[in-house]
Amino acid sequence: MFALSCRGCGSALPLDSRVWRCPSCGRALWLSSDRGFHSLDEIVCRDRRGIWRYSRALPFAERPVTLGEGGTPLVRGNFWGAELLLKLEYISPTGAFKDRGASACITRAAALSARSVVEDSTGNAGVAAAAYAARAGIGARIYVPADAPAAKRGLMAALGSEVVECRNRGEAAARAVSELREGELYIGHGWDPFYIEGMKTAAFEIFEASVVPDAVIVPVASGTLLLGLQRGFGDLLRAGLMEMMPRLFGVQGESCAPLYEDLHGRVEVGVGSGLADGLRIADPPRRGEIVEAVRSSGGDVFVVSDPEIAAALRGLHRTGIMAEPTSAAALAAFAKNRRETGETIVVPVTGAGMKDVEGLMAALRSSP
Amino acid sequence: MFALSCRGCGSALPLDSRVWRCPSCGRALWLSSDRGFHSLDEIVCRDRRGIWRYSRALPFAERPVTLGEGGTPLVRGNFWGAELLLKLEYISPTGAFKDRGASACITRAAALSARSVVEDSTGNAGVAAAAYAARAGIGARIYVPADAPAAKRGLMAALGSEVVECRNRGEAAARAVSELREGELYIGHGWDPFYIEGMKTAAFEIFEASVVPDAVIVPVASGTLLLGLQRGFGDLLRAGLMEMMPRLFGVQGESCAPLYEDLHGRVEVGVGSGLADGLRIADPPRRGEIVEAVRSSGGDVFVVSDPEIAAALRGLHRTGIMAEPTSAAALAAFAKNRRETGETIVVPVTGAGMKDVEGLMAALRSSP
Repeated sequence: MFALSCRGCGSALPLDSRVWRCPSCGRALWLSSDRGFHSLDEIVCRDRRGIWRYSRALPFAERPVTLGEGGTPLVRGNFWGAELLLKLEYISPTGAFKDRGASACITRAAALSARSVVEDSTGNAGVAAAAYAARAGIGARIYVPADAPAAKRGLMAALGSEVVECRNRGEAAARAVSELREGELYIGHGWDPFYIEGMKTAAFEIFEASVVPDAVIVPVASGTLLLGLQRGFGDLLRAGLMEMMPRLFGVQGESCAPLYEDLHGRVEVGVGSGLADGLRIADPPRRGEIVEAVRSSGGDVFVVSDPEIAAALRGLHRTGIMAEPTSAAALAAFAKNRRETGETIVVPVTGAGMKDVEGLMAALRSSP
Repeated sequence: MFALSCRGCGSALPLDSRVWRCPSCGRALWLSSDRGFHSLDEIVCRDRRGIWRYSRALPFAERPVTLGEGGTPLVRGNFWGAELLLKLEYISPTGAFKDRGASACITRAAALSARSVVEDSTGNAGVAAAAYAARAGIGARIYVPADAPAAKRGLMAALGSEVVECRNRGEAAARAVSELREGELYIGHGWDPFYIEGMKTAAFEIFEASVVPDAVIVPVASGTLLLGLQRGFGDLLRAGLMEMMPRLFGVQGESCAPLYEDLHGRVEVGVGSGLADGLRIADPPRRGEIVEAVRSSGGDVFVVSDPEIAAALRGLHRTGIMAEPTSAAALAAFAKNRRETGETIVVPVTGAGMKDVEGLMAALRSSP
């Protein structure tokens, strides 16, 4: 039913292949399925909760590695006179939306009897990988840039992972694959197609909450959530349950905005966007596909700067939503680009502020 | 339908009374209801999630102040050869089970048009109060002991609360009520009956997950979760849905164990229990009722020490469960007192380790 496929050269591989990219052309692989859905009942297991509620749409679902991820609340929030629907993705086993992806890809790693998994991350994806690897009883090695928040590195270690410090984000990504050993599986979230499968469950949840968004605004670095939403809403469209793909808006920090630049050309960097430490991927593996997902949906990519992020962060906290700075980028982009439309707009709040309180405090202090 | 009542002197007060204890005898009040339930359908609103799924059993449910609390996962865990069911209460808007109580009692505060709420706390209850007060758009002032974790105090302030530092936990509790001003509502979690109402929803969730526990093991300080479970399971018993109250076990740190001492006499303090910083209430307002709940269910109160807590904390982390030290006390008590029984035992994991990573690291370092 499920297989792996390359959109670049058309290669197809069996589901249990232990590769992390296309062996022929080197591009990132996708999960493919010969099965479409025709109703919600074909997707939903009504007696289950979290992402494995949608196990009919997920590979290796017989033995999920789960900590109860997914099933996050969708709450109303009023900001600058406009009403948004906030999907509180930080209410999650490790405090970030990454748990959806980590659960799916470590489930695969366990099914393939991997001895150990390897990830590279600035923080949240690494903590998620560490937690799910521990849950599965398999090892984990996480490559982090030297300036990754100390609190997040500490959590990875507490969960039993080996943490390898690299000079920067690029070196972390490179060494994670170059130092891969026999029996280990690379699950880098920008590459692993199972990660995106985990993310698509967020679209199913939004739909099950009787919400059909006109637009979704998400922070993008590797783009796993944006691509996952595209896949999930795509399944619902093909099943005839929705009429249109929501417009997908990606948000980047102005200091590192490759997706914005692909659409609009060089960004004018003002004060920078150091607060969005989770968004620093200079050349994401699925770069072309993210841009295409945004463009084909009628969406766009926005950039935001530190003062805008800090103001949005303060706005979230003052309504009780304890987000981390990176995840406030989406609300900042909404504030900057909004028009009066009356549309249904969903904004995932992707990470918890409590995970790196020091970083949070510094960000809030920087807000006017 | 709902009212407030005093079990000490028998006083009854209307639901919208703005008192925080019995005006006649000074004891903690309880919520009472003239309505019993006869089936699960009378309790559950099937189209809702989280604690307000049980809004028929909750007061002021017309306008809940919610951040999507409750609906926490119940996952299997294997420790020292025994299988437990872990209720992951830290997967919550502010990373602790306190959110159930805070949602219920700030819902009441909003319904009574309180200008501001006042709480005293070592950390988790204060962060929860701060978040829900912000969500409701009302002020909050939190009294904390001087040694409350800096990260948690920072979060309270980030959420817009006024944080008042006191010399110790006892002074925090005393000043919170002595400095109460006109228009403010005291919601101290040890006193507020609405807090316990929020907690009882955990029992409904366990039952809805098709689990009928033989025993539940919970850390106790003010005892809100233990008393809430007793109330929730009590509702299910009276509805004929369960046959017996699960045995309720409370766990305290050996350095501050008033409930243990009420049952067993003076505790022999060895190395102490500084890691269980959330369990330091020397004389909880509902002390007699907690002891009675434990005793009448056939349960007990256990004490644990720092090395036991640290070992349990490490055990949790090594299975991917990112708990805080205080919440590992329950697993530590299980490890110390377990027998081979084959019983269904539920252990709530009450707080997230990511909220005070510094404290977490120190605790893990102290484990052999």
